[in-house]
Amino acid sequence: MNSIKAYIQENRQRFLDELIELIKIPSISADSTYKNDVIKTAEAVKASLEKAGCDSVEICKTEGYPIVYAEKTIDPNLPTVLVYGHYDVQPPDPLDLWHSPPFEPVVKKTEKHPDGAIFARGASDDKGQMFMHVKAMEFMTSTNQLPCNVKFMIEGEEEVGSKNLGTFVQENRERLQNDVILISDTGMISNNTPSITTGIRGLSYVEVEITGPNRDLHSGLYGGAVANPINILNKMIASLHDENNHITIPGFYDKVEELSQEERAEMAKAPFSLEAYQNALDIESIHGEKGYTTNERNSIRPTLDVNGIWGGYIGEGAKTVIPSKAYAKISMRLVPNQDWAEITELFKNHFESIAPKGVKVKVKPHHGGNGYVTPLNSIGYQAASKAYTETFGQIPIPQRSGGSIPIVALFEEELNSKTILMGFGLDSDAIHSPNEHFGVWNYLKGIETIPYFYKYFTELSK
Amino acid sequence: MNSIKAYIQENRQRFLDELIELIKIPSISADSTYKNDVIKTAEAVKASLEKAGCDSVEICKTEGYPIVYAEKTIDPNLPTVLVYGHYDVQPPDPLDLWHSPPFEPVVKKTEKHPDGAIFARGASDDKGQMFMHVKAMEFMTSTNQLPCNVKFMIEGEEEVGSKNLGTFVQENRERLQNDVILISDTGMISNNTPSITTGIRGLSYVEVEITGPNRDLHSGLYGGAVANPINILNKMIASLHDENNHITIPGFYDKVEELSQEERAEMAKAPFSLEAYQNALDIESIHGEKGYTTNERNSIRPTLDVNGIWGGYIGEGAKTVIPSKAYAKISMRLVPNQDWAEITELFKNHFESIAPKGVKVKVKPHHGGNGYVTPLNSIGYQAASKAYTETFGQIPIPQRSGGSIPIVALFEEELNSKTILMGFGLDSDAIHSPNEHFGVWNYLKGIETIPYFYKYFTELSK
Repeated sequence: MNSIKAYIQENRQRFLDELIELIKIPSISADSTYKNDVIKTAEAVKASLEKAGCDSVEICKTEGYPIVYAEKTIDPNLPTVLVYGHYDVQPPDPLDLWHSPPFEPVVKKTEKHPDGAIFARGASDDKGQMFMHVKAMEFMTSTNQLPCNVKFMIEGEEEVGSKNLGTFVQENRERLQNDVILISDTGMISNNTPSITTGIRGLSYVEVEITGPNRDLHSGLYGGAVANPINILNKMIASLHDENNHITIPGFYDKVEELSQEERAEMAKAPFSLEAYQNALDIESIHGEKGYTTNERNSIRPTLDVNGIWGGYIGEGAKTVIPSKAYAKISMRLVPNQDWAEITELFKNHFESIAPKGVKVKVKPHHGGNGYVTPLNSIGYQAASKAYTETFGQIPIPQRSGGSIPIVALFEEELNSKTILMGFGLDSDAIHSPNEHFGVWNYLKGIETIPYFYKYFTELSK
Repeated sequence: MNSIKAYIQENRQRFLDELIELIKIPSISADSTYKNDVIKTAEAVKASLEKAGCDSVEICKTEGYPIVYAEKTIDPNLPTVLVYGHYDVQPPDPLDLWHSPPFEPVVKKTEKHPDGAIFARGASDDKGQMFMHVKAMEFMTSTNQLPCNVKFMIEGEEEVGSKNLGTFVQENRERLQNDVILISDTGMISNNTPSITTGIRGLSYVEVEITGPNRDLHSGLYGGAVANPINILNKMIASLHDENNHITIPGFYDKVEELSQEERAEMAKAPFSLEAYQNALDIESIHGEKGYTTNERNSIRPTLDVNGIWGGYIGEGAKTVIPSKAYAKISMRLVPNQDWAEITELFKNHFESIAPKGVKVKVKPHHGGNGYVTPLNSIGYQAASKAYTETFGQIPIPQRSGGSIPIVALFEEELNSKTILMGFGLDSDAIHSPNEHFGVWNYLKGIETIPYFYKYFTELSK
């Protein structure tokens, strides 16, 4: 990959400007108000792939938001890399916690990003990380160094559960044939300690609704005599964890992959400072499942978190009401071997069974996906490891992540190929939070590293 | 009270029209957006009292919304009745459950109100019930039948805890001197079974805030490893009731007035159908403190209800977030002898003590007041009983209510006089709920009954 460093140096400002233009479009897939912006983003991605030298670029319709698909075939006998990414972003709220508007990107220096970081929703997740692949592609085509075939599949519904990607993949199995799938939608330990994510958690996301009386009631006249849906919801959710923070849903742990003491000892070698972790979050104490360390709790163990709760009067001042309804959004992170559809069913049955007679319960599954583990001895992992070693000057650490990319397990099932998660973000980049950002150094380092993956993957495949 | 029936018949439409005009002004004291409307309502009340024949009417400034004060003195040697009411109303949300806009009153017939009922926020609580006194006054002055002196004190902050009434009463003790206080802000059993409220519950209303990490976090990367403020809030609230639905705050029941078996047997005589109660609310089962009946649970027993809860992502779709903060509004209904300030302190100390180390807790007291019991042998109660007997044709049943009018206990302390709660609404009138309404028959029956209270109170005081 001759001249990659020089090419980046030369095009640095343009690479930044192009990404910033893409980030400015508020492609919030969870909120239908932004429908036109999501579509507009798909068109911008299409244009960028054309410019990067892809032969055919297409906006493929789905039942929801479209998938941008592109190809560049140089020789059918050479291996094919399928790049997956997403152009949709998380909702930006709570807005009042942002230091600058979420869709007006600004570049600011931080302690961890002395070269500056782009602050905006989607800066890292996943516009920034996805766009590194577009720019890496541009470099390889424009300098005639593309060593293999490439396909791009960039979707617009990742943040709402990739509802229509499964159907698209099933219906386009042939077209999507590949030798390895490459995704940048994860992080690494630090800019000085590169790492590659080798495991991700699965997810089951549900919404629950508790109905008590058929109308809101005066808490004086009815308080104490009828089931208050908020109190009941609190009791029900509270009962989902026992005193050791184990999840109490019957059968929940049945298929959980249990790591050996050796594997756990290996994990424990990753650099981690509990003090720095607590200080960064401004918490006095960590909190989680008894018998596991923080790094185990957020990677190899399943969890259950309430992501949103609401009911009754939440305005200014006071209202003495017993509401008719209370709601919560609840997600469970799953580990390899747990099947998300089965877990969703276990949750539903259990949650319905623990409701007292005075209320009615509805459990609505939102979306989900299974966990995944990348084998370290695969050609894909080895190519990625060599690529990082080339550009970072050190061997990357294999690491399990707590996040979920539900479609990775689906890809393996449907396309029968392994996925390599080459992430360049940091945990502190606040993805899904106010003030999300992505280091300029990280963005450019990603563009520099990706072409080496193509090179080594092609060489190792021979 | 000669000719009261004829007077009402003659002025029926005007009485309705005048009340409807007053209800149209959205005097929501809890929401500062409606500030001008609250003030406008005070002015409308002032005008109506002048029209009703009061000698001096004044809008008295407070730190918050003003108090409308009026007097009519006919002879210093005669007794003085002080009428208390409020011109502010509860917030109307959830708006989508109203069948007609909350501040565009409509008169519709219902099963319980064959003569029609006025549907609007404030129709009963308390504009309708308060305005009965204005119209009763108009009748007595215009027909020269006022038998004693009258004072009116109509406030605009009842629904937000009467924040400034205490100071006003303390600063105007002399001016407010009276022999009995008369309030219509409660209900009766049914139009065929008149009743007088002889006890009301106290109230302590607090807001709690749980802070976990210093920013919203991605639930994949941090889930299971840090305290989620919503999960924690749920656990903490759930722990406030034990398996028998007793409240677990240490000391909470220490001063609770325990009724004798005889008193409870007397209470149990009031007509009550559990089936009708459950059907009206569309619930399969009641729910409450073990060892007590429904009518005991909502009148002579203290309670703890969550009136509102919020935290995390509550928009459309899904967001995998661990929020930094979660909130709840919690109110406790108290019974006689429980001191609301003391209970608020007990709650605060207990709630702070049960928080795990990974979160910070704030408890903000909103407002409160003590419970109250009216002695059945008082002149005031006897006058009220005779007035109902005169107009309803049967002796009213004395009844404990679960609601709170915190200022009643304050009046006794500061003004040393007893309060009589002559309410004409029904429990089914949906006060504090969507589709609040007040029967036209009830409104007019109140106007008819009130002058008899003045008559009998003056006679019994001789």
